[in-house]
Amino acid sequence: MQKNDLLAERNRGYFEAKNMLALNLVSSPGSGKTSLLERTLVDLQAEVNCFVIEGDQQTSNDARRIAKTNAPVVQINTGKGCHLDAAMIHKALKQLAPTDDSLLFIENVGNLVCPALFDLGEGARVVIISVTEGDDKPLKYPDMFHTADLCIINKMDLLPYVDFDVAKAREYALRVNHHLAFIELSATTGQGMEQWYDWLREQRLALRN
Amino acid sequence: MQKNDLLAERNRGYFEAKNMLALNLVSSPGSGKTSLLERTLVDLQAEVNCFVIEGDQQTSNDARRIAKTNAPVVQINTGKGCHLDAAMIHKALKQLAPTDDSLLFIENVGNLVCPALFDLGEGARVVIISVTEGDDKPLKYPDMFHTADLCIINKMDLLPYVDFDVAKAREYALRVNHHLAFIELSATTGQGMEQWYDWLREQRLALRN
Repeated sequence: MQKNDLLAERNRGYFEAKNMLALNLVSSPGSGKTSLLERTLVDLQAEVNCFVIEGDQQTSNDARRIAKTNAPVVQINTGKGCHLDAAMIHKALKQLAPTDDSLLFIENVGNLVCPALFDLGEGARVVIISVTEGDDKPLKYPDMFHTADLCIINKMDLLPYVDFDVAKAREYALRVNHHLAFIELSATTGQGMEQWYDWLREQRLALRN
Repeated sequence: MQKNDLLAERNRGYFEAKNMLALNLVSSPGSGKTSLLERTLVDLQAEVNCFVIEGDQQTSNDARRIAKTNAPVVQINTGKGCHLDAAMIHKALKQLAPTDDSLLFIENVGNLVCPALFDLGEGARVVIISVTEGDDKPLKYPDMFHTADLCIINKMDLLPYVDFDVAKAREYALRVNHHLAFIELSATTGQGMEQWYDWLREQRLALRN
């Protein structure tokens, strides 16, 4: 674990040198992480060079979906492993060769437990939940919400059909992390996506300061 | 891990001695596992004594929900741990003191990776997915589907609103485990629940043979 923290700092130095914003996207399986990323890449690539590292236990399905957006992508299969670690990212960066001033999305393995414990050297951590999950997720998986900078509440288009209290979910998440920011959106309909893009723009601007 | 396998066999012997059916329920967070369990307990308790072991990283929320059904329940909090292990079950059984010929539901931590690797001594493993997740989950988390006996496809009431191909999900799951059985249901509306109860009855009958 200490070895991971050292390598994470090395990655952080790499991102700093290239003035890159690196985001660690974490969620449970089925939160709509990949769909969110697909739409984001399509909408933002004209504005900024985007690169992607895809983590999954098995398959390259997500990498294939991402490749269709024309963003350069490297797939990491963790096998029996339940999370990405800093060494995997370090190795993937060599292969990906991202450009200066670019945006790197790291899609972690779908899991709300293990990825919380591993710093990848990212500039910000984004936890994605969906309204089809229980609104008490932040209390049940506190480490993940405690270490996140932004919480995206996805699939807002399904809100009328499910029993999910957005205010309660926010309150629970703030209980474990009172610095957490929130964006409610639907990657399917597009509602709220502009707020997410504005957040990304702010984070990129902050890099220079 | 070898120590876990030994303790799992010990649990298996305990269940055998008491002619109990013990089920290990695994899923990602938000699949509706707890709601499924609540409804099952309400419907089956007149027919069979039911006991519950609840696994979560933190909180006793689920145990409180289960306790309202009057089923005896023990909560295990795994803290930073991402799964239950055989030793935790062994200890919880002492506290729970289940009766002979009873039904034990073990609700594992919401996680599609780590729980796959830990035998708890259960008689059958049930993986629950919901139609609000991607239909390629079986390919991305093959260990979980490979080690399961039954796959429940939950939240069928939301099928009209999401992009989920039931036939594809089944086909993918059968690719990693051609013995897998399937039940499609909705714990919210109740559709398909009778099939699940029949499956439980068959498993209990098989214990005696």
